[in-house]
Amino acid sequence: MARIVVVYSGGMDSFTVLHKALKEENEVFALSFDYGQKHNKELECAKQVTGELAVAHKILDIKNISSLFTSSSLVSNEIAVPEGHYQAENMKSTVVPNRNMILLSLAIGYAVNIKASEVWYGAHSGDHIIYPDCRPEFVEIMDRASKVANFEPVKVFAPYLNSDKVGILKDGFAMGLDYSKTWTCYKGLERACGKCGSCVERLEAFEVHNKLDPLPYLSTVG
Amino acid sequence: MARIVVVYSGGMDSFTVLHKALKEENEVFALSFDYGQKHNKELECAKQVTGELAVAHKILDIKNISSLFTSSSLVSNEIAVPEGHYQAENMKSTVVPNRNMILLSLAIGYAVNIKASEVWYGAHSGDHIIYPDCRPEFVEIMDRASKVANFEPVKVFAPYLNSDKVGILKDGFAMGLDYSKTWTCYKGLERACGKCGSCVERLEAFEVHNKLDPLPYLSTVG
Repeated sequence: MARIVVVYSGGMDSFTVLHKALKEENEVFALSFDYGQKHNKELECAKQVTGELAVAHKILDIKNISSLFTSSSLVSNEIAVPEGHYQAENMKSTVVPNRNMILLSLAIGYAVNIKASEVWYGAHSGDHIIYPDCRPEFVEIMDRASKVANFEPVKVFAPYLNSDKVGILKDGFAMGLDYSKTWTCYKGLERACGKCGSCVERLEAFEVHNKLDPLPYLSTVG
Repeated sequence: MARIVVVYSGGMDSFTVLHKALKEENEVFALSFDYGQKHNKELECAKQVTGELAVAHKILDIKNISSLFTSSSLVSNEIAVPEGHYQAENMKSTVVPNRNMILLSLAIGYAVNIKASEVWYGAHSGDHIIYPDCRPEFVEIMDRASKVANFEPVKVFAPYLNSDKVGILKDGFAMGLDYSKTWTCYKGLERACGKCGSCVERLEAFEVHNKLDPLPYLSTVG
């Protein structure tokens, strides 16, 4: 048992990470970030889930930092979130520069402050292609940087680093998780759009498991 | 000539770094952070100096993050800033956990966004003893992490890493810099206190050069 800070966006990946940390009987502190993402519905999910689980939860408002990132469609109102598959070139506009280093550095600082020994987050191999800060070498170097930057060693760990959304769902189903309590769509609408890279990847993962995604969708890509 | 983001607090170290970057004819974007520090007078200095120099300047308000760091005297109103020499045990309360990783990660993200190729900051060897995130191995690993985290390589560089405040002042005097345009004291008073670790170190550095610090002080440690 360890005291662990879980970076918990409210999405299905970090929802599964959160439950994995709890299942292994760790003392969990969930940390969410409001960085001005259009899809802040995921934060509502995070609040509700941690409330139900009685897990300590902090939502840190770092919306101001979006003023640094004028070229990302995830935070800029001047750029539309692209539709289609993640691998496509146009999905690069969903990259918030250096996002995971920023979020992890805050989570590590929080961990030092509350004397937690680990920070967990939901990086997985499905994101590697367009998000360099989800790659194994990134997690490894952040783990080393974390141990150099502070006298109190804080480990950085991504339990699904060598897995993908299909593998994450497999583990989640084995834990009996209810994915209606998560949010994935990048657009800020009432229902999931079914068309952005994030929705497409999620729907494909459910399909592999022959399960119906419990979320309501506006429509789904053919 | 390169496009460079300079992490510029308004203090004497980063003031010197800023001028060094300008002197080498780089295109400089200064970035300051309002992280809820009691000594926000340094931000006023930063604003004035960049205005006079006509250097692009952004002050990023990240005051919210102080809610993560309840145990640091630099941001908590419940803990007094300690007096005396830096080396002393009580100075550890001035450590904001993981601060430099947080600030650098934001500066790197900003650099990626504006297509800058380098981030400079004012770490120096005088800070190594109590601030692990000012050590050469920290700068080195952040430089490597930066290059792993983003497809656009951003170099992390601390020009005075192997120097100290005395060396920084030497370089600054050679550039003809006016240190009345900087702020160093950790306390949030009208005049510098002359007693906190930051003031003591500054005054000692001026003394080595047989120069009078142009800042007004309340009093100085005998």
